[in-house]
Formats: sequence, structure tokens, C-alpha cells
Amino acid sequence: MKLTVVGAGSSYTPEIIDGLLGQACFDPLEVALYDLPEGAQRAQIICDMALRMAKKRGVQARIYVEQQLDRALEGSRFVVSQFRAGLLQARVKDERIPLKYSLIGQETTGAGGFFNAMRTIPAALDLAHRMEQRCPDAWMINFTNPSGIVTEAVCRYSKIRCVGLCNVPYNMHVDAARLLGADVSRVYCQMVGLNHLSFITQIYLDGEPVLKRMIRRKMFTAQVVKNIPKVAGVENLIERLGMVPSPYLQYYYFEKEMLEKEQAEAAPDGPGTRGEQILRTQDQLFAIYQRPDVCEKPKELEMRGGAYYSTVATTLMKALTGAGPVTTPVNYKNMGAISDLPFDSVVETNCLVDINGIQPLSFGPLPQVVRGLVQHVKAYETLTVEASAEHSRAKAVAALLEHPLVHGYCNAEHLVEELMHYYAPYVGELR
Amino acid sequence: MKLTVVGAGSSYTPEIIDGLLGQACFDPLEVALYDLPEGAQRAQIICDMALRMAKKRGVQARIYVEQQLDRALEGSRFVVSQFRAGLLQARVKDERIPLKYSLIGQETTGAGGFFNAMRTIPAALDLAHRMEQRCPDAWMINFTNPSGIVTEAVCRYSKIRCVGLCNVPYNMHVDAARLLGADVSRVYCQMVGLNHLSFITQIYLDGEPVLKRMIRRKMFTAQVVKNIPKVAGVENLIERLGMVPSPYLQYYYFEKEMLEKEQAEAAPDGPGTRGEQILRTQDQLFAIYQRPDVCEKPKELEMRGGAYYSTVATTLMKALTGAGPVTTPVNYKNMGAISDLPFDSVVETNCLVDINGIQPLSFGPLPQVVRGLVQHVKAYETLTVEASAEHSRAKAVAALLEHPLVHGYCNAEHLVEELMHYYAPYVGELR
Amino acid sequence: MKLTVVGAGSSYTPEIIDGLLGQACFDPLEVALYDLPEGAQRAQIICDMALRMAKKRGVQARIYVEQQLDRALEGSRFVVSQFRAGLLQARVKDERIPLKYSLIGQETTGAGGFFNAMRTIPAALDLAHRMEQRCPDAWMINFTNPSGIVTEAVCRYSKIRCVGLCNVPYNMHVDAARLLGADVSRVYCQMVGLNHLSFITQIYLDGEPVLKRMIRRKMFTAQVVKNIPKVAGVENLIERLGMVPSPYLQYYYFEKEMLEKEQAEAAPDGPGTRGEQILRTQDQLFAIYQRPDVCEKPKELEMRGGAYYSTVATTLMKALTGAGPVTTPVNYKNMGAISDLPFDSVVETNCLVDINGIQPLSFGPLPQVVRGLVQHVKAYETLTVEASAEHSRAKAVAALLEHPLVHGYCNAEHLVEELMHYYAPYVGELR
Amino acid sequence: MKLTVVGAGSSYTPEIIDGLLGQACFDPLEVALYDLPEGAQRAQIICDMALRMAKKRGVQARIYVEQQLDRALEGSRFVVSQFRAGLLQARVKDERIPLKYSLIGQETTGAGGFFNAMRTIPAALDLAHRMEQRCPDAWMINFTNPSGIVTEAVCRYSKIRCVGLCNVPYNMHVDAARLLGADVSRVYCQMVGLNHLSFITQIYLDGEPVLKRMIRRKMFTAQVVKNIPKVAGVENLIERLGMVPSPYLQYYYFEKEMLEKEQAEAAPDGPGTRGEQILRTQDQLFAIYQRPDVCEKPKELEMRGGAYYSTVATTLMKALTGAGPVTTPVNYKNMGAISDLPFDSVVETNCLVDINGIQPLSFGPLPQVVRGLVQHVKAYETLTVEASAEHSRAKAVAALLEHPLVHGYCNAEHLVEELMHYYAPYVGELR
Repeated sequence: MKLTVVGAGSSYTPEIIDGLLGQACFDPLEVALYDLPEGAQRAQIICDMALRMAKKRGVQARIYVEQQLDRALEGSRFVVSQFRAGLLQARVKDERIPLKYSLIGQETTGAGGFFNAMRTIPAALDLAHRMEQRCPDAWMINFTNPSGIVTEAVCRYSKIRCVGLCNVPYNMHVDAARLLGADVSRVYCQMVGLNHLSFITQIYLDGEPVLKRMIRRKMFTAQVVKNIPKVAGVENLIERLGMVPSPYLQYYYFEKEMLEKEQAEAAPDGPGTRGEQILRTQDQLFAIYQRPDVCEKPKELEMRGGAYYSTVATTLMKALTGAGPVTTPVNYKNMGAISDLPFDSVVETNCLVDINGIQPLSFGPLPQVVRGLVQHVKAYETLTVEASAEHSRAKAVAALLEHPLVHGYCNAEHLVEELMHYYAPYVGELR
Repeated sequence: MKLTVVGAGSSYTPEIIDGLLGQACFDPLEVALYDLPEGAQRAQIICDMALRMAKKRGVQARIYVEQQLDRALEGSRFVVSQFRAGLLQARVKDERIPLKYSLIGQETTGAGGFFNAMRTIPAALDLAHRMEQRCPDAWMINFTNPSGIVTEAVCRYSKIRCVGLCNVPYNMHVDAARLLGADVSRVYCQMVGLNHLSFITQIYLDGEPVLKRMIRRKMFTAQVVKNIPKVAGVENLIERLGMVPSPYLQYYYFEKEMLEKEQAEAAPDGPGTRGEQILRTQDQLFAIYQRPDVCEKPKELEMRGGAYYSTVATTLMKALTGAGPVTTPVNYKNMGAISDLPFDSVVETNCLVDINGIQPLSFGPLPQVVRGLVQHVKAYETLTVEASAEHSRAKAVAALLEHPLVHGYCNAEHLVEELMHYYAPYVGELR
Repeated sequence: MKLTVVGAGSSYTPEIIDGLLGQACFDPLEVALYDLPEGAQRAQIICDMALRMAKKRGVQARIYVEQQLDRALEGSRFVVSQFRAGLLQARVKDERIPLKYSLIGQETTGAGGFFNAMRTIPAALDLAHRMEQRCPDAWMINFTNPSGIVTEAVCRYSKIRCVGLCNVPYNMHVDAARLLGADVSRVYCQMVGLNHLSFITQIYLDGEPVLKRMIRRKMFTAQVVKNIPKVAGVENLIERLGMVPSPYLQYYYFEKEMLEKEQAEAAPDGPGTRGEQILRTQDQLFAIYQRPDVCEKPKELEMRGGAYYSTVATTLMKALTGAGPVTTPVNYKNMGAISDLPFDSVVETNCLVDINGIQPLSFGPLPQVVRGLVQHVKAYETLTVEASAEHSRAKAVAALLEHPLVHGYCNAEHLVEELMHYYAPYVGELR
Repeated sequence: MKLTVVGAGSSYTPEIIDGLLGQACFDPLEVALYDLPEGAQRAQIICDMALRMAKKRGVQARIYVEQQLDRALEGSRFVVSQFRAGLLQARVKDERIPLKYSLIGQETTGAGGFFNAMRTIPAALDLAHRMEQRCPDAWMINFTNPSGIVTEAVCRYSKIRCVGLCNVPYNMHVDAARLLGADVSRVYCQMVGLNHLSFITQIYLDGEPVLKRMIRRKMFTAQVVKNIPKVAGVENLIERLGMVPSPYLQYYYFEKEMLEKEQAEAAPDGPGTRGEQILRTQDQLFAIYQRPDVCEKPKELEMRGGAYYSTVATTLMKALTGAGPVTTPVNYKNMGAISDLPFDSVVETNCLVDINGIQPLSFGPLPQVVRGLVQHVKAYETLTVEASAEHSRAKAVAALLEHPLVHGYCNAEHLVEELMHYYAPYVGELR
């Protein structure tokens, strides 16, 4: 079983290696690590550590850096896409530019997510088109953010089977299980929405629906639950919604509070934006990876925010390889599962994953209390995909006009100008 | 032909009387003018002037004030609903309360529109239920704002046939004709959306589609066209959209600019909010109406903003009475006309109106560039209707959470508190 | 105003000439008559008579035979398509071949309609593609049977605007008016379905819905109403349906009885099939047309079955030319008007027709009592269109498998063999 | 775990007992056997044998006859519904009455299925309403035929969770595995449609789609495959469809051939209808069941046609009890899974079944080649459910008008008369 990691220089890569090693169904394992020249050194560091990890566990595995993308893809069964166009330096800009306009600066949500998407889609489509030649039956396992938008781009503009993953839903699942004092295997969360815009609509414990009871007992508090918006009064919001929102909903429901927080962090006397903080963490991580005595993924990796990243990816690939069916929220073609989102768009909802592929579970209409918001953001996402694929400046502006966090036409035009100013080489021409 | 005007003390009433007088198809005309006790005096002033208007034109018409609503409705064919729950004083609050939260303060859009809707729906449903008893086959011609929401409430919670009118679409039509230098009869505008959230998607001149050409020639400028957002650069926005937005879209696309304008007007040294300005105009108008020599609708009425109000109402009632079919944008049940809005919701789109009733013209999917926004606001509208009809505080908060101009959960809770603080007698209990 | 008649050698042509002459909105009138060489002589006879008709009425009109199709189309505003691929001789085969399999033999319904469609679609698409070159803005007014299927083919596989007409709905309208003792202008029929598979779901008299009352009074009897199935007990069927079916529904609801009738007519001692009867009528008609003293459409033309053919065509073309809006059942793109038929398929339902074009009126879901049948036949129609356009033998068989009057797989295969045996030159290759 | 069998006197009951015994997840097992007085004796015979079966296997189980339905239901977790209203004697009439009209006579398809449905729905709804009182959280596992229609009735008119089962899909799955020479666990069949009107649209072997190849190799022949129509040339039909039809499709695609076969069987010198043959088998079976030495389900039971009946039921109940997820075709609420069938209707399609319940997998639109037929039959089914629940004679006739095997209005009226003549006590009043 050959697996290719695109963007292998990411500090997350050891997570995924950790998940793959020693899984019978991936045996014998071959991992091709690919990155652009600017990431090649980091990829090599990771390769070396990965080989040490394999050795320590006594696992036979071919793990190597391959600098030719086409060769890295050749004959692969899974292509894990986790690159970041422009590296973390671009993420920092995604965060700081919107702040100039008093807008949320975040790598996946709002204007920053738009920058990220416009920069990333061309590279993701290039990857997909190469896969069509080199490994047409492979799955693209997409972690590249914004995961839902990138997955929609690949699903619409290539023939490659692509699924978008994210560790947020699984983290919410783990939180729910913890609140219930139950093992995660006894708990099932019905999730619905889009990537970073999803909601738990029901929680089952041993098959019993328990969400209403959990809400009534105010179990979801910002103090206790990691993966809900971190704002006072959030338990009242959850009661109003009758659902548990993903933490990313804080940017919508508590925009003002979040903006103030970001502005404080980005201020000269602040700790820097999230991207800036991660840049520092990353250096520390690679210093650790490089140490010849390190042959396990270090604890410090968790600080990076990728908890369960490996669990999510490994579970999915195991199911696709035939280890038995799982039902899990992923980003995939809607196909009517959510009846008030377009048939062909990509949504994040519970899907059946097994050796035969991925099939969404029919959900029906979105709960009305979030229907409009989700439809609004979905329209933004699809316009963004089309703006990139069609090189349309009008659609780029239109996408931002359709984003509820962009606030108006003037911002939309300015942001597209910023996009082209900073990122033209990634974005390509807009006409 | 008996027609009942509910809210007859409005300064607009002479407009509608003017349109009715002398129309052969309404002959012999009977108009019952109804208002609450606080409007009764104004209703009487209008009745007197209406009789003078009829006399001057040599028209036979029974026009009278009837203070019992049930008696006013008995046997009516058309009930023109144009009341305002709480009078203009409430409108002023609708405008000022949101400003406290740095939110747009407007009688139909955003938080102010929500207040207005929550205050008005109970009275509109009471009217509809009385009509079910007194004139079950009559049409309710609804001008009461927010017109689309009120119409949806009546359509969903009563058996009365109800159509929501607004003079904005007709004003946009007139503007388009003027730009083309053509008589309005040669011009046809394809409109789609919701009340105060609609778009011209195509303009036909003598059957030829000309919108693209008009946009290319930058004919839609804030200087020239009355009924588009009054903001610099709006012609570029129109080019991006490929459509002409209703003037109310300025609250969405130019929210910041509009908020600043409203704040300036509402400031101690400003001219007051729009409602406050109208309060003054209204007194002047009634002073004129009272003069025994006034037997025509005075020119000053136009300043009030109701241009073509009478044209719109009369055209519709004539068509329903059998004067021949017209195709015109009204607020009516969707019935699949706009394929990505709910089947049973009320939309503002072109309908065929004739003696057999009203039928929407199939439009298909919304243009993607506005689809998300319109779906978002529609979700807010429907939740508002349900919050009122079901007396649900959770749905009231949910409605505001679904409004793109309310900006967050804290505002939503505060605004519902303000609603109950100021308007509880109108709203009824919320549980 | 130039109009082209394709299939001008049809005995119906004088009907349409009759409707055009003397209409102010078509002035000055130019009519190019086109037919294949085998119809050229008849086209000339008609041309001569048409000129006599114009002369008698004192109308200035250019009417001429043009044997080059491209030249006939050049600059046309309306192209009336009324040709029959294979002439009436083919119609006779359409009727007789199915009878061999004890199946209904009819030129538009069942196996015969399938033959007709497969023979006709290639020619109709050829016509449409020539129009794209010669008169891209013209309307194709399609009377060529099977009208709904041919219209769907043109709408899906060309850019030409095409509307399918039929005189059946208008005949049903006239019947309804007669039963009510009212002028047709006071009556409005809500129709829905497909061509030759449509239903009146409501009748309005002066705006009042009266269908239920008419059914209760058993007004629709085979004796009195021309355009309902001509079978005993049909009034009970109408009561069960709560709707009035088109006469063509007799082939579905009274298949056995109709088959026996057809078999008797086709028997050696019978009067021959309908096509054979018309062949005789046609000769008589052309004998009349040829007489130099004939300068009006002769009464005998009505026997041919084309009552109101001219009314329907002229009304539509007048409305499209700007004579004012009409609401009338035509075959046009669904666009969501009938919510349980595919968005892009062609349906026969009430549309608004005016200078700006054609727009279907939103109807909603089909009445359940006919929903399944209509969906079934629509699937057959669409498969037939695709079988022809894609030259697919599998789809041809599949189309017949989806027809409720074909009764089974063996018949389907045999009928496709018959099709290719008799009609290969018209059908083209099937792979 | 308590399970109730309603219609326990069926000769199938030992099948289900066989499946339940010794399953860890049903431990400790309690089975209440219920039947009407006329089946009570047979239920007792089965109870005795079941106890012998349990004893032989060394399984502790409470198995008993309970003649009070409410008591039998009290506290149950699963209610297996497998009764036949009117017993096998009624089935024989379901088969023979249609033959009088030269119509297919079959217990689930066509007129016979309609009789069966109309007789059964009232009893099924009575059962469901008692469950609402006695075991509101239990699942009704419905085997009662026509299984899809009965399930739709229960889903629409009660709050009980109900799933309809049938052994045909599993038999088709087994056949596909056998053709591939693979264990059933390696094969996955994508099925879609309605009960007894379903199609395999794809077959996966170890995750690889192989249906096209299997068709190309003409692997599906009537000789080899048990569960396809048993008619010469069926492999060509399958090639045309690109899908494998359920054996019940023979009544649609080979109606004439099947009718002739049925007529021959029903002739005085024939073996009798299927029901008559089973009546004889049943007596033999119960003779065996009664023998004290019989403590296993006898081989003769397979002749009865219930192969895998127990596998299907046990697999489903195990999955619902928490033994792990399975993906299997069942009859359940559509919920958008098949996008061109009504949202609320019951369909037979692949669903995920696990401890949390049942969720259909999104399928999308039906393949066009069967879309019309399936929609047509679905309309019949829904009208039948409504005719029964609303006691509407007009809807009963309408249902038959919508059935493609009933052939016309006269048959429809006659069949409803036959229904009321023979079955009025079961059907209740029709108005």
C-alpha cells in the first residue's frame, strides 16, 4: 500500500506516520514524502524521524522523500494533501490583512479563509490533475485548508475521488463522550453543515438520543467543553439553537468579541496572531524532530492543535481499505443528503465509509435556525471555487459579497485588491 | 364594490382614494375607513377630504368612517391593510433602539424591521381571522410593513388570500424606463427576491433584453437613478452583480456607510431619524387635508415617500377585478417559482395577476451572487413569523441570529429584551 | 414580419394563412412556404390559393414558395414547423405496425408516437441548427407531432427558442365555455401535464372556480363534450379524477376499448385507420384548393381535425409580437413550474406569453391521481429524445420499456426492429 | 430482550426463531407468540417446536403463546409483523380474482397486491397504535406483505418506528456473490427502488465496481441466477437496463408471458395458483412441526420461499441492538435518499443500520430507464395507503388507475367492487 504525503514538511506529518505504522491493513507500507523545495529540508527531517519511529516499533516500512511530484504520486492508493500555499508566512498575512479592515482574521473563516482558498485551489487542482495521470483510482485525503472549499474544487473540476477531513468534528465527539463519562465508541454524534460551520444536531449514547437532556442540564459550558465557542453565555446560545455549534461558529455568533481578542493578540504588545505563535512552535518542533533520540511523536505536537488528526485520517483510510464500515462526518459531495443545499456542492455531514467508498447519509432539511447562515456561507464557498477555477474577478468580489463576515461591497473590492497585491503568483490572473 | 381600508388614518390614504375614484371597474364604489380610536380623528379628516375629492370629480361613491372593524369588513371585496402597530412613535423607536447597539435602525430591515414585524403580526392575524368570518373571499392587499413578513404570516396562518405590495419595484421600473427614454409600458423588468431585498435580473425594452448593455454603459448611477443605493461606486457594484439591487440593499452592501449616516441624523444636532422627519411631515399633511378647499391629493404627499403607491394598488385591484392581466412583482406564495427558496414561503417576484387570482411566474434558481444572502434573510423572516405565531422566545432569538445585520448572539438576546420591554402589549407573551 | 412555414404542403396550411392575413401586428406580411420536393407541388397549390385569399381580403402580403430551406429561413421571425417525416404514408404505418402486436396504433401516443418521434427528431434538429445560422432570434412554433417530444428535442439540443403548440387544449377550453354557456373570454382553464397527456385541474368562470360544481352536475359527458374520451362512463372517471382529461387519455384509461375500435377500423372490411381516412380527405382538399374560384379556407378543412389550429398559432404569435399578454397552455421548458417533473424537461402547462417571451406559471406538484402516469410518460419522452440525439439503440428500447402502453420487453425489442426496418433513412444509425 | 411475533401461526416462524436462538446480543431471550384465534392452534404447535429447538441447542429462552395482543406487546423491543389478513385463503383470492380480468394475479404486485394492501393496512395500523401504548420505543419489523406499502402506512399514520423487510434483496446479493465465486461478505450490491420493484445498480467485489463486466459477460441468465425474471432473453433485458431487476419485475417486463403462465397454473388441469400450492405445503410443514422428534427447522421450509428470511431479520435486529453497523437494503422513509421520489414516502434502498437506528444512504436520482416506472408504482402505493387510511373509494379507484398493470378505468372500478364484495370486513367502509 503506497501513500503519498503532499506537503510533507508540515509539522503535522509525524501524526499521520504515527497512525499508519503497525496497521495490519496498510501492510506492507510505503510512504512517499513530497514537498516543494522550500519544504524539502523539513521533509527530510521528518523522513528521518519517521524511519526511527518505524524501527523502534519494529515495523517494516518504505518511507522516503521524493522531490518529483509525479513520481511521488505514481501508483499511490492514498494521497494525503496537507500543504499550505505560501507556508505559515502566508497564514500570518491571512490573519493580519483582514484586521486592517476591522474584519475577523482567520485562516479558514472570513476574508482570511478566502485568501487561503484563492491561493490554494490552483495548486490543489494541479495535484488532482496529476493524480488523474499517475494514480487515477487513488483517494485524495484532503486536510489542506479551507478543507471544504478545496474539496469542492477538486470534486467539481477533476475526476479524482476526494474527501475533506478535519479534526474538529472528532474533537467534538470526544468532548461529548467525556461529558457523558462514556467511551467514544458508545457515543454517536449526528453532525451537519459545512467545514468549520457544522453543528451537532443529536447525540446518541448506546443508541439513546440524549442531546436535549445534556442541554437542559447545561453540560456544554465554555469552561468544560473544549470544542465550543469560548465565550461567556455560550451555554445559553446552545439552548437557543438546540444544537452544539463547532468552535468556529464563534466567529459568526461572537464576531465582535472575537475581533477584539484578535486585535489584542495582534497588537504590538500582544503575543502575535495564531499563525505567528505557531511559527514559533514549529521551530521548536523541528528542533525536537531532528534529535536522533526522538523516535516517537513528541508531546509538544499536541499544542499545535492537531489532536486526533492522525486518528481521523487513519480511521478513514482503514475503512476505505476494507477494515469495516465507519460512520463519520467528512466533507463530501452532498448528493441530496442535506436537502436545502445544492446537490453537487460539498458539505460536512455524516457519511458511511467502507471499502466501496463514501456515501452521505440522508439528513433532510437543515434546522431552520442555522439554515440561512449555512446556505449563505455555502454560496460564498461555491463562488470562491468558481472565481478561482474561472479566473473571474467579478466572481471573487461576488464571493466576498456573499460572506456574512465581510460586511459590504467596499471591503470586498479592497480585499480582492489585497489578494492580488500579495498573492498574485499563487492565484493566477483574474479577469 | 366594497373596499375597506384598515389604518385609514394614515397620511397615505388619499393616495389610494385618488386611485380608486373614477375607475369604471370599481363602480359603484364603497369605501369603509377603519382605524383604532387613536387614529379615528385622522380617519375622519381623510374621509371628509375624500368626499370632497369625489364630489369634485363628479364620482358617486360611498365613503365613510366605520369604527367597528367587523362591520367595516362585512362583505368587502378588498381589504387594504396599511396600519402601523404603535403609530409613527413606534417607528421612531424601531430606528433608535438598534442604533444603541451600533446596528442599522430601519423600519423594515434588520433589528428595527424585526421589532415592527413582531408588533404587527398579531394584529395582522387578528385582521385575517376576522376576514375569514366577514368576507372570506376578499383579498387582503397588504401594505403594512414589513410587507413580505406580514404577508407570509397571513398566508401561513389564515385562509385569507393575501398579497403584499410595495412601491419600490414599481419605482425601479419607472427609473429603468426613464433611463431608456421609453414609456413604462414598453419596459418590462424581471425582478426576484424578497420584499426590500429584490433585484432586477433583466430589463426588456419592446421585448429586447437590454440590461447588460445598460450596465456596460454605466447607466445606473446614484446621481441619476433614484431607486438604487445612494452610495458612490454603486455602478461598480451593479456591474459585479450583473443585476440592479433594490435601494434597500444599501443596508447590506453599504452597512457601515449607512450606519454612519443614520447616526449623524439621529445625533442631537441632526435632523432626526426618518420617522421623526415623517412625524413632522405628517402634521403638515393633515393640516392641509383639513382645509375645506383641498379636494385633490396635495403635492406635499409625494415627499412622504409613497410615490406610485396608488398606481400599484389600483393596478392590482383592477387586474383582480377583471380589467385584464398584468405581470408585476408582488409578495406572494413562492410555489416553486424560485427553486431554491422554500415552496411555502412568501417571495417578491413577478406574478401574473388577473381575474382568476395570482400566479407566480417560474423563475428557477436565484442568481448565485445573491442566493446566499436572500436565503439567509428568508430564514430570518420565516423564523420571525413562527416566533410570533408560536409565541416562542427561542425562535425570536433564533430569528435575529439568522439576520446578517444583527451581528451576533449578544445583540440578539438584548434586542429581544428591548422588544419585550417596549412592545410587550403588541407582541403578546413569549415563552 | 417574415414567417416561414416548414412543411407547407400540409393541407393545414390554409388555416394558418387565414389567421395571419389582416392582423395589423403582422403587417407587412411575408410568408415563405417551404417543403421537400415531394411536397413542392402541394405547396405551390397552397401558395396560389393563399394569394387568392389575400387578394380577396384586400391584404398586401408577400407569399411565395421557396425550395431552398436556408433561404426560406433567412431573416425569419417565426418558423412554423408542421412537417411530417415520411408524409401521411408513414402515419399509416405508425398506426398499423403496433396493431400487429395488439398495441394501440396512434400517431402521437404509444408505439406509433415513438416511431413518429424517432423519424422526426433528426429533421427537427436539422431545422433548428439551420435556424441558429439564418434566424437565431426567431421562434420555432412547433406543430410537428409528437409536439411535446419534438419541442423537448429542440429545447435541449439547440439554442433556438421553441414552443410546442396543439389545438387540443384550446378545444377543451372551448368545450368548457360551451358547457357554461359563456363566451370563451370569460372562461379560464388551468391545465397541466404533457402534450396529449394533459388535464384541466380547474375552470374559472369570471374568476370563480367552478370545476367541482360542473363535475357534480355531470356536465362532462361523452355525448356533449367533444374533447374528452369518447367512452361510456367517462363522467364517472372524471368524478374519480376530479379533473377533466384530454381526449388522448382514452388510450390510457380505456386502452382495451380503443384497441378494439382501432382493430375494427383497420380490418379489411373497416373504413381504414385514421391516417388512411385522412389520406382520402387530403386528396379532396387539394382538389378544392386547386379550384381558381376558391379564395377562402374551405369548410371541409375542419373535418381534418385542425379546428382552432389557426386561432392557437395566431394568438401566440400576436402575443409574442406585442399585442398584449395571454395566458395559455403551451409546450415549454418546465423550469420548476410542475415541481415533480424534471426542471429541464418540456411540459404542457399554462404559460404567460407576451412580447418578452414565454414564462411558465408555477403550478406546484401534480395531482397525485395522475402524477405517476405523467412521470412515467415523461421518462419515456426524454429517453426517446436522447435515443434519437445520441443514436442509442439501448435508449430506444429503454424508452419503450418506460411507456405504459408498450407492455413489455419483447414488444420493445420488436418495435425497435420494426423502426429500423421501415424508417432507417429517417432515424439514422442506432448503435 | 423481549420480541413479539404477530402472526406467529405462520409456517415461517421457525425461521425467525432459528435466527434468534443463541445470539449473544438477544440474551436473555423472550419471545411472545401472538396470533388471532384462527391461528392460535398453529402458533401453539410452533411454540412447542421452538421450545424443543431451544432445548436442543441448550439455549435459555422464554417462548410462549400470548393470545392477548396488548399483553404480547407490553415492553417489547422488537415486534415482528408477519401476519396475513384473511390467511392463505385470501391470498388465493388475491391471485384468482385478477385472472378473471386477464390481469396478473399475485399477492404483492398489481390488483392482487392492492387487495392484500387494503385488507392489511387497517390491521397494521391497529397494531401500530397498540404499540404506541404498550411499547412506544419498539421497532416494528414488518414482513407483512405488501411490505413497502404496509411500512409506508405505519410510518405515515403512527409514531412507531417501522422498517419493512423482504428476503428478495438478500437473495439477489447471494446470487451475485455466487456468480462471482466470492463469499457474500466480499460483495456489496447497490440497490434502489421499491419493495418488489428494485434494481441492483452496482455490484462491488472487494470494493471494485464489477457490474458492467458481469453484464458484458452475460453472467445473469435465467438458468443460472435464481432471483431474476425467469424468462428467455432476460440477459438482453439486463444489458439494455444496465441493471439487474428484482424477479418481481417479470410482471412488468414480461407481463403477457407471466399472465399466460398463471392462467395455465390456475386452469382446472393445472397445479393451482401459488397460494394453492403453498396451502398444501403448509399442511405438510405443520405435520412435521408437530412431530416431537423435530427440534430443528426442517429442510422442507425452504421450499416455502423464505430462504434467508431469518438471516435478514436477525442481521437487522442485531445491528439495531448494537452488534455493529450494517448496510443493507430495507424499506424505510426516503428522506431525500432517492431524489425523484417524494421525501416522505417509503422506498427500498440501501440504509445504514446500527444501534442509533436506520438512515438511508443518499442515492440521487433514479436511473432514467426505470425512473418513470418506479414513480408510477410509488404513486399507486401512496394512493393505496391514503385510500385505506382515509376510507376513500375515489382514492381506491385512483390508486388502481395509477397502477401500470391494471389497464384502465373499467378494471379499476370492477376491482374495487370485488374488493368490497369479498373483503369488506377487513377493509372497513369506503366512502
